[in-house]
Amino acid sequence: MAATTLTISSKNYSSWSLRGWLLCRLAGLEFSEVLVSPDDPAIKAEMLLLAPSILVPCLRHQGVTVWDTLAIAEYLHEIKPKAGLLPSERAARAHCRAISGEMHSGFTSLRSALPMNLKAHFPKYKVWSRAQTDIERVLQIWTECLAHYSGPYLFGAHPTMADAMYAPVVTRLQTYDVLPADGPCRDYCRTILALPDLQHWYAEARREPEAIDELEVEF
Amino acid sequence: MAATTLTISSKNYSSWSLRGWLLCRLAGLEFSEVLVSPDDPAIKAEMLLLAPSILVPCLRHQGVTVWDTLAIAEYLHEIKPKAGLLPSERAARAHCRAISGEMHSGFTSLRSALPMNLKAHFPKYKVWSRAQTDIERVLQIWTECLAHYSGPYLFGAHPTMADAMYAPVVTRLQTYDVLPADGPCRDYCRTILALPDLQHWYAEARREPEAIDELEVEF
Repeated sequence: MAATTLTISSKNYSSWSLRGWLLCRLAGLEFSEVLVSPDDPAIKAEMLLLAPSILVPCLRHQGVTVWDTLAIAEYLHEIKPKAGLLPSERAARAHCRAISGEMHSGFTSLRSALPMNLKAHFPKYKVWSRAQTDIERVLQIWTECLAHYSGPYLFGAHPTMADAMYAPVVTRLQTYDVLPADGPCRDYCRTILALPDLQHWYAEARREPEAIDELEVEF
Repeated sequence: MAATTLTISSKNYSSWSLRGWLLCRLAGLEFSEVLVSPDDPAIKAEMLLLAPSILVPCLRHQGVTVWDTLAIAEYLHEIKPKAGLLPSERAARAHCRAISGEMHSGFTSLRSALPMNLKAHFPKYKVWSRAQTDIERVLQIWTECLAHYSGPYLFGAHPTMADAMYAPVVTRLQTYDVLPADGPCRDYCRTILALPDLQHWYAEARREPEAIDELEVEF
């Protein structure tokens, strides 16, 4: 049988790669990585928000090819139901899918103004107003979840697909120095940043030689 | 028990409303509509692609509130599994979710250049190149599905969530006079446009008095 693979791109810049990879790790899937260079024109277009990409993330498992992050999450939930990628209670599951979908299709101002860039740190970064509106919506989503399900993850004691969907946002708040000063959202960011899987990904991002000038913000 | 409701906006302009509504109809759900005026600032921002909306579509059912179109589709599949919103075979189900996800997060050039506008018809409309690239990707997706699953719907004999996700694109090809001239994709567009549910929605769109100037293309 063919090996299970996940195709991803730059660990420093590609937020969709991070999401897909975290989902596979949270699911407990054994897989090997297939890396596409961030210099690939299709990948670069995706990271510059010029075009969607069906190249990354892409999971190949037992003859099935699944692209698109949410489709990968649902597929992983089907093959690894005990991993808890979705909450077990129906209303919580619907809520988890709703905020995951909102991340999937929205927040374009946040994405374009604060591109994921794990190696960088920009103290006292000035966030423009439309991206600030996106950040406020993210904090509202997190606050509601953390109050309702009691943390430390968005839907309680264990990470779900929603935490994987929002993990790149946590890294952006860190990179651009706009982490919440205190409160439940601050604790949540610390919880995500301390995830061993995310720490592992950060370490590999730091070893990447490539720099994409268009994604290095002016400061 | 509270009534089941689906909150939607303009039937002429709001493609996300159409998707959510079609999904509920395909699922066989009994529901009543709650209409939000397209003059509502949040709705208008969503239709102008300035901000995502969590207002429409929004399903309320048995105490559960679900927003985001894909989350609604998955919820409907859970409560109405026999409706076949997702294919019964695992690889086909993954494929259906992948192309639905691709529609959900992508095709922004197509959306901005060819806004949904059911009442309008623009013969010999000139599509700019980036939107044309989106259209070619859509036709590639359809061609692969129709060849693999033998039509008339994307995943075979019955409509699935993917058909609901792509239905607004079919209406755009009709509105802007760029329906495929022949072949399987042409047949597919005819199949979708002939759906009684879509015909019903078109009839109601034609009765809407509102016009949103920013969504009426220059010609």
